[in-house]
Amino acid sequence: MRDVRRPTLALALVAVLSACQPPADRSTGAADAVRAADIAWEKAFTSKDLAGAIAFVESTGSVLPPNAPTATGPAAVQALFQGFYALPELNLHWQPTSVEAAHSGDLAYSSGTYQMSFNSPSGKPLADRGKYVTVWRKQADGSWRVVRDAFNSDLPVPSSAPK
Amino acid sequence: MRDVRRPTLALALVAVLSACQPPADRSTGAADAVRAADIAWEKAFTSKDLAGAIAFVESTGSVLPPNAPTATGPAAVQALFQGFYALPELNLHWQPTSVEAAHSGDLAYSSGTYQMSFNSPSGKPLADRGKYVTVWRKQADGSWRVVRDAFNSDLPVPSSAPK
Repeated sequence: MRDVRRPTLALALVAVLSACQPPADRSTGAADAVRAADIAWEKAFTSKDLAGAIAFVESTGSVLPPNAPTATGPAAVQALFQGFYALPELNLHWQPTSVEAAHSGDLAYSSGTYQMSFNSPSGKPLADRGKYVTVWRKQADGSWRVVRDAFNSDLPVPSSAPK
Repeated sequence: MRDVRRPTLALALVAVLSACQPPADRSTGAADAVRAADIAWEKAFTSKDLAGAIAFVESTGSVLPPNAPTATGPAAVQALFQGFYALPELNLHWQPTSVEAAHSGDLAYSSGTYQMSFNSPSGKPLADRGKYVTVWRKQADGSWRVVRDAFNSDLPVPSSAPK
């Protein structure tokens, strides 16, 4: 009995020890997933897949557009995106330039640049460029969705001088 | 020997098991610390403690102001803050309204609102209000510093109609 039981307990100890590593650093894999999610969000938005683009934002998530109130929740985000789509000849793209995630792999941010062009109501071509910060959270199903998204222009406020 | 050794191994197993809990969820304590850091940053900024306000931003951190390029690193952040301080009669305050942190307690965001007033070069009082998202990272010394900070106005772009 002794020769059988002691190795069994020792093996159990080894098994428990090997299962008890320090928490894994999930930041690299999470950052890769968030970069892919940001790129997929851009594709949904630019292809005017309104439902797809809205679905990237958590149901309590917020988009913070410049010169307009915060849009929180699907209805407000939809109205905001529809406002963009209503701009004649809209061409809007963004690219993440830095993405970092927490060690636990549940929270991350992406940050990058955007370029936008459209026509004014009078048909005048207008261009803008700027930058953004997006906070992402990993969902129960493993996907990543937007908690907060803020962006603004690099360009000075348009002159108020009469044309 | 049997009666002594078997309890010793069993106790070792219990000790190892009790030390091998799942990773602690540090999100609540981290969120409290980030809220305090955001409030302390606001106090440093509004009291015109320039060095103190700059020190809240990581050396590779960025502030993303509206209608201006991204300010990355202490020199650029200093120039940006000095630009604010140069506004006559500046009165700028912000308050975090939501703060959440990763389970690992190393990355977090705060989001909130700001109110600003100042005088134009001609002495006309101007007011602005808006919102922000700030990404924070816990430092080796336990303090929290800013990785990215983006903000923008709730108000429409000033009219370009001649006065």
